Amino acid sequence: AASRLRLSGLCFLLQILNILLFAALVRYSPESSPGRCPPQLNCSQRSQDSPFQQPRFQDVQVQVLLSFGLLVVLLSRYGPGSAAISILITAFAIQWAVLIQGFFYFFLNGKIYVGAQSMVSADFCTAAVLISTGAVLGRVNPAQLLLLALLEVTLCSLNEYILLSLMGVSDSGRSLTVHTFGAYFGLMVSRVLYQPHKDKRKREEQQDKGQQTDTFAVVGTIYLWIFWPSFASTTTVHHNAENWALLNTYFSLVASTVSTFILSPVLYEESTPRMVQIQDATLAGMAVMGMAGEMLVTPFGALIAGFLVGLISPLGFRFFTPVLHSKLKIQDTCGVHNTHGLPGLLGALLGTLLTLLATADTYGHRLELLFPLVAQGSRTVTDQAFIQLGALPLTLLLATLGGCLTGAVLKIKVLRCSPEAQYEANSLFREVKLGNC
Amino acid sequence: AASRLRLSGLCFLLQILNILLFAALVRYSPESSPGRCPPQLNCSQRSQDSPFQQPRFQDVQVQVLLSFGLLVVLLSRYGPGSAAISILITAFAIQWAVLIQGFFYFFLNGKIYVGAQSMVSADFCTAAVLISTGAVLGRVNPAQLLLLALLEVTLCSLNEYILLSLMGVSDSGRSLTVHTFGAYFGLMVSRVLYQPHKDKRKREEQQDKGQQTDTFAVVGTIYLWIFWPSFASTTTVHHNAENWALLNTYFSLVASTVSTFILSPVLYEESTPRMVQIQDATLAGMAVMGMAGEMLVTPFGALIAGFLVGLISPLGFRFFTPVLHSKLKIQDTCGVHNTHGLPGLLGALLGTLLTLLATADTYGHRLELLFPLVAQGSRTVTDQAFIQLGALPLTLLLATLGGCLTGAVLKIKVLRCSPEAQYEANSLFREVKLGNC
Amino acid sequence: AASRLRLSGLCFLLQILNILLFAALVRYSPESSPGRCPPQLNCSQRSQDSPFQQPRFQDVQVQVLLSFGLLVVLLSRYGPGSAAISILITAFAIQWAVLIQGFFYFFLNGKIYVGAQSMVSADFCTAAVLISTGAVLGRVNPAQLLLLALLEVTLCSLNEYILLSLMGVSDSGRSLTVHTFGAYFGLMVSRVLYQPHKDKRKREEQQDKGQQTDTFAVVGTIYLWIFWPSFASTTTVHHNAENWALLNTYFSLVASTVSTFILSPVLYEESTPRMVQIQDATLAGMAVMGMAGEMLVTPFGALIAGFLVGLISPLGFRFFTPVLHSKLKIQDTCGVHNTHGLPGLLGALLGTLLTLLATADTYGHRLELLFPLVAQGSRTVTDQAFIQLGALPLTLLLATLGGCLTGAVLKIKVLRCSPEAQYEANSLFREVKLGNC
Repeated sequence: AASRLRLSGLCFLLQILNILLFAALVRYSPESSPGRCPPQLNCSQRSQDSPFQQPRFQDVQVQVLLSFGLLVVLLSRYGPGSAAISILITAFAIQWAVLIQGFFYFFLNGKIYVGAQSMVSADFCTAAVLISTGAVLGRVNPAQLLLLALLEVTLCSLNEYILLSLMGVSDSGRSLTVHTFGAYFGLMVSRVLYQPHKDKRKREEQQDKGQQTDTFAVVGTIYLWIFWPSFASTTTVHHNAENWALLNTYFSLVASTVSTFILSPVLYEESTPRMVQIQDATLAGMAVMGMAGEMLVTPFGALIAGFLVGLISPLGFRFFTPVLHSKLKIQDTCGVHNTHGLPGLLGALLGTLLTLLATADTYGHRLELLFPLVAQGSRTVTDQAFIQLGALPLTLLLATLGGCLTGAVLKIKVLRCSPEAQYEANSLFREVKLGNC
Repeated sequence: AASRLRLSGLCFLLQILNILLFAALVRYSPESSPGRCPPQLNCSQRSQDSPFQQPRFQDVQVQVLLSFGLLVVLLSRYGPGSAAISILITAFAIQWAVLIQGFFYFFLNGKIYVGAQSMVSADFCTAAVLISTGAVLGRVNPAQLLLLALLEVTLCSLNEYILLSLMGVSDSGRSLTVHTFGAYFGLMVSRVLYQPHKDKRKREEQQDKGQQTDTFAVVGTIYLWIFWPSFASTTTVHHNAENWALLNTYFSLVASTVSTFILSPVLYEESTPRMVQIQDATLAGMAVMGMAGEMLVTPFGALIAGFLVGLISPLGFRFFTPVLHSKLKIQDTCGVHNTHGLPGLLGALLGTLLTLLATADTYGHRLELLFPLVAQGSRTVTDQAFIQLGALPLTLLLATLGGCLTGAVLKIKVLRCSPEAQYEANSLFREVKLGNC
Repeated sequence: AASRLRLSGLCFLLQILNILLFAALVRYSPESSPGRCPPQLNCSQRSQDSPFQQPRFQDVQVQVLLSFGLLVVLLSRYGPGSAAISILITAFAIQWAVLIQGFFYFFLNGKIYVGAQSMVSADFCTAAVLISTGAVLGRVNPAQLLLLALLEVTLCSLNEYILLSLMGVSDSGRSLTVHTFGAYFGLMVSRVLYQPHKDKRKREEQQDKGQQTDTFAVVGTIYLWIFWPSFASTTTVHHNAENWALLNTYFSLVASTVSTFILSPVLYEESTPRMVQIQDATLAGMAVMGMAGEMLVTPFGALIAGFLVGLISPLGFRFFTPVLHSKLKIQDTCGVHNTHGLPGLLGALLGTLLTLLATADTYGHRLELLFPLVAQGSRTVTDQAFIQLGALPLTLLLATLGGCLTGAVLKIKVLRCSPEAQYEANSLFREVKLGNC
């Protein structure tokens, strides 16, 4: 009873805090009411180079699908029992991300001016939080997840601000800032929270995944196929470059799906892969195109990248996840390292390589849209490539440090929770159970 | 056998009637073929103040999601067994609403000119019918539901015409004309059809809701999160005001979701709310923003409104629904009073309050889009607020009178149905069974 | 084990083949980077008569829903167990169709220039393959399905090229090139692969379809209602004619749904139809509007067409499918003849009739968009109608010949598969089992 009221009280406090902060600080951006933009505020902060780059509402609609799409997809691994908690995390993280990102991007004269763009950025942060959740699920209780969201949103926004605004990294599909950051952050939290005696029980419970999981995996995979490529294409800031990101993501996705069918019969006894494996391949094929999607100039490049990442991801599940667990004591409940961490990392490396190869000749007028500083002459292509490469270790550093810190904070809090209450089943249908303490 | 053929025959008669009426009266609006608009017909009836307000096809696509979105959502309460009937009701109500609304809005020289706008308006009516269905489900048979749709579409269109066209009420998200009207209409039908001896059996059957329901609730909730805010934003007639409606709806929804997590552990023994409860909070958070969504000028207003309605809705389920049943003899199968009735009513009151506070200073050029008559000077803000307020009792009056009338009509028809056949189960998977008589 | 590795190896070979062909031949179309279109390549091949007819990315997003929508829908008949194979087929067929259609439409100087339009055309071909799969499912193994996709994509592209480009047939919703071709192709393959002794076992297994199927049917039906009409409207090449296709499809769909409720209680003992039957009616109501959707000038025409096809499709299931099986020895696992074959055929006949009636008076400026050759005066309306009519037997001929050929090829391959391994169940949840040999 006490633990139930604790979650209830924490939600109440956080929501009141959010309302007070919003009341004190947040106003609607004049962007949404043209003609009332005060001259001090640069109304189109992120879209200086072209007049038609403000996100249209249609695009926003597609963009906000991201976090919910992920939610659908993760449900196939987390089980419908965790859906309620996932939605709570999403609801809290969006509000918090609007505040934190507002401080970084839209702060003027003591007020944060929010608009459609704030909502989109907030959704990206929420996606990173959901990815991290996948690594620690089953070993944290809802109150801990709320604190994790609170800290991760702050650090993820900081990382994004450093990379995109200060360093001028081109990462429109967020290979680094969402996929890589979210995965390694979650893995470090998982490492800090490691408790050997609990793992055995966990693994047994996970055995009895049934029919439900498969249904969600089917729905989730089809959802990704339908919406992600067009999502990836709308996040590219530049309207004329959209086409490539869309098509490259499609080709990558298609090739990584076929890869799963090649490797699955070799690695497992089943003749056709399970839907969850296909979904993992789909996610990996998309994460790898995050940064490189709008840079690739030939379709076969996307086919090869998707093909390789579709081979690497199942190999990671088979050989790397057990090593991670036994040697590094990092448990990865939903295998986010194989579906988001590694593919995001490879995507960043591919993006760096493509940046090196970028010439005005191959890109044409795209160059100034993709790498505005290069096109303006204030940076060489090699400089840009170094900066893209440097963003990778920086992201990994911030993610691991942040994960350690968050894990330590959660460990203090977890003391309030009696261990025997941890694994009680709330309902028959929660496959991956959340600790309720 | 006789009852089966009766439904079949009724469908046949109604469909033939529809075809004949369409053949005699309905033509495609010249709107869809620009250049052929006869001068007598004002081709853009609802969009006089701005040239770019004709619904774009993309918007229409989003708008028609409404009734189907509701359908998905209601399925989690009605059970998949009722899906077939819900779709029949939808299919019939759309045709009938195109006819009835055509008489009110698009009638000229003995012909109804339909276009994309007709389809959108028809979908709104269908949504109101689906909401009413939620109140009476389990105590009516399919034939009765068809008659209910026939009558409600007519009255709902009448109410909408009086409010929006004659009185000039601003209700773009249909807090009043869909949510409030649908809920109270359904409740009155439920009151008239009240039969004490049947209720006990009903309640027992409802206990064994299972896994299916939860899966539908997950899908339905995510569907609402993804599509409703952008739906709410596209129904705002005025292109430049879109942004606020979208963002306000999001903030309201997010806050009402957190509210559920605050109240649920206090009211029930469960530590996390069930998905159906989260879905109810989502619906309530959206209904409250129907009228006020495009009027709110600060995000924290939406957060507070969502937060409060998220508290009121579960309290209503816990304390008000039993009172409604025992004292007023109104059964509310799916709790539409808590998810549509009360929130819609509160949304209308909030909208009235905001209308009172509306000044040219805070709204800028939005004023003439939101309240064209006020901006033109033919009405004061106070007048407009009184009219907005007066629309509420008028809607309640029409809904309750219409509900009584419809209930009386259904009561006559139900005599043809032997009571013992009422509750036979058709299939294993119909949780909330439909009477088959 | 050998058969598992055979599928794995086949996937590997085909994917490497695709990558090599893409590397050698396929480049991104200059369409996607405006300003770099070489003068030799007519950058807007299909959109010569109007400048704003290039597919917008929003439209493309909606268009690519087609194959996946079908996939969702087919799952309710095929069972989730076949989802993995369906996705493999889709992933392979899209790549192959981009190549094959590129040869027909976008080939210049030894290179295929792909763009958003290629993806859309590829999706159409994939839809035809998925329809054919529905006819033979349960009697072919995954490797055979891959070969079927390889051959059908080639023939379907050829048929489409002859009809749309050489003959100038107007078939924007693909009544002929997708629905009719896919259905009759699949039926012929099914005929050639007919093996009497296996059928009995098959039919018994199909009895135990359960709950899952119904859930998928609900989701699939609602998906179709939401997305197909707007899909149908965006494939109409001509922006101003969109409206009619959208509205006609809606009206047809609504009427065919009501028809199911009329006929179902008469044909079967159930009082309300099962969701799968409603879904079949929805599919039929859409297939019939494929060609005629943008030609119909009055809404009641669409209502009547939908009403009739909604009666014909269940009658086909009840009376024609058994005859097909016993007399013609054609098994039709998922009844594609009733949901795609017959309605597509009727739609083509309706389209021909409407072409005959087309006059500059009724169509106005639409005439030059629908039948450019007629508007230009190089064809009379009667000529155009004859050509539309002639496209029907041509499509049937190509489909049946191609189906025979493909069946023969699959029959050779199937020799490598031991018959006793054919029907082993892989998992508990595969309702319509795929042969694994």
